[in-house]
Amino acid sequence: MNTKETTESMDQKKLFIKMVIMSWETQNTRVNKLLEELSDEQLSAETAPGRNRGIYLLGHLVAVSDGIIPLLGLGEKKYPELEKIFVTTADKSELQLPSVAELKECWNDVNSSLSHYFNQMDPDEWFYKHSSVSQVDFAKEPYRNKLNILINRTNHQSYHLGQLIYLKTLN
Amino acid sequence: MNTKETTESMDQKKLFIKMVIMSWETQNTRVNKLLEELSDEQLSAETAPGRNRGIYLLGHLVAVSDGIIPLLGLGEKKYPELEKIFVTTADKSELQLPSVAELKECWNDVNSSLSHYFNQMDPDEWFYKHSSVSQVDFAKEPYRNKLNILINRTNHQSYHLGQLIYLKTLN
Repeated sequence: MNTKETTESMDQKKLFIKMVIMSWETQNTRVNKLLEELSDEQLSAETAPGRNRGIYLLGHLVAVSDGIIPLLGLGEKKYPELEKIFVTTADKSELQLPSVAELKECWNDVNSSLSHYFNQMDPDEWFYKHSSVSQVDFAKEPYRNKLNILINRTNHQSYHLGQLIYLKTLN
Repeated sequence: MNTKETTESMDQKKLFIKMVIMSWETQNTRVNKLLEELSDEQLSAETAPGRNRGIYLLGHLVAVSDGIIPLLGLGEKKYPELEKIFVTTADKSELQLPSVAELKECWNDVNSSLSHYFNQMDPDEWFYKHSSVSQVDFAKEPYRNKLNILINRTNHQSYHLGQLIYLKTLN
């Protein structure tokens, strides 16, 4: 019976994790589909008058996804230089941006790395604290775990996808 | 030991549900904050040239959130008439829209109903199938449960919040 209980508990954990990863992958698929549909010229335009350009939002999504790697204790960021350009600095600064083609490569690379890491993670590990929360705070707030990072980042991606979609030509 | 295992398993379930509900509430709070900041005039404008108006997206979010009630088997929709105007029909049709003030009332009402329902739900219930999936499909795809609906609806809300934010005056 103990073994059965443990198996049930583990199955449930795996189910939670699968739900969260599926939701993440659904958003990635939507972003990928949009990236295929948009020309480099469209991606270089503003998503709405005076708002962030497509290229900036793409770089922003790459940088934020890249940041998941250290937050989950999986390794170092692959493109740490993107943080300054696409997270701490607003769009249309003096900074030189990588090209759309370069950013698309980074995007695919970061996503395949994350996918690789996620496949290797032990189910229990998702419920450990992420690297930006202290042991003391985690003891009080056990939801501040690695899986929660992915839930939040999925929402963040949906938010910007809603803006990137405005780059599509109006029917 | 069995009891301990069961308690652990239940605690884990509760933790996961809490994570998903917190993520939902965070998005609601952000929408509420934005609604407080925008005038009715701003909400009546297009989120970007040629795109959905704020009032349409607000009605859309109300209708989709209202749809969670029957999907989770919690009761009937409170505003079934909004489905036709804000889900099956695109913006700028011939249909008469409710006013911004009316939609804000519906929004608050649906959210407080959902919050009330969520508080009463038994943790296990979140892992039952939602009402749009058959028993046969659910047996093969156990992630098509009620909690997954809330994960998806949270992403949907983030997506449109990313668009509604464009109604704010540019700095």
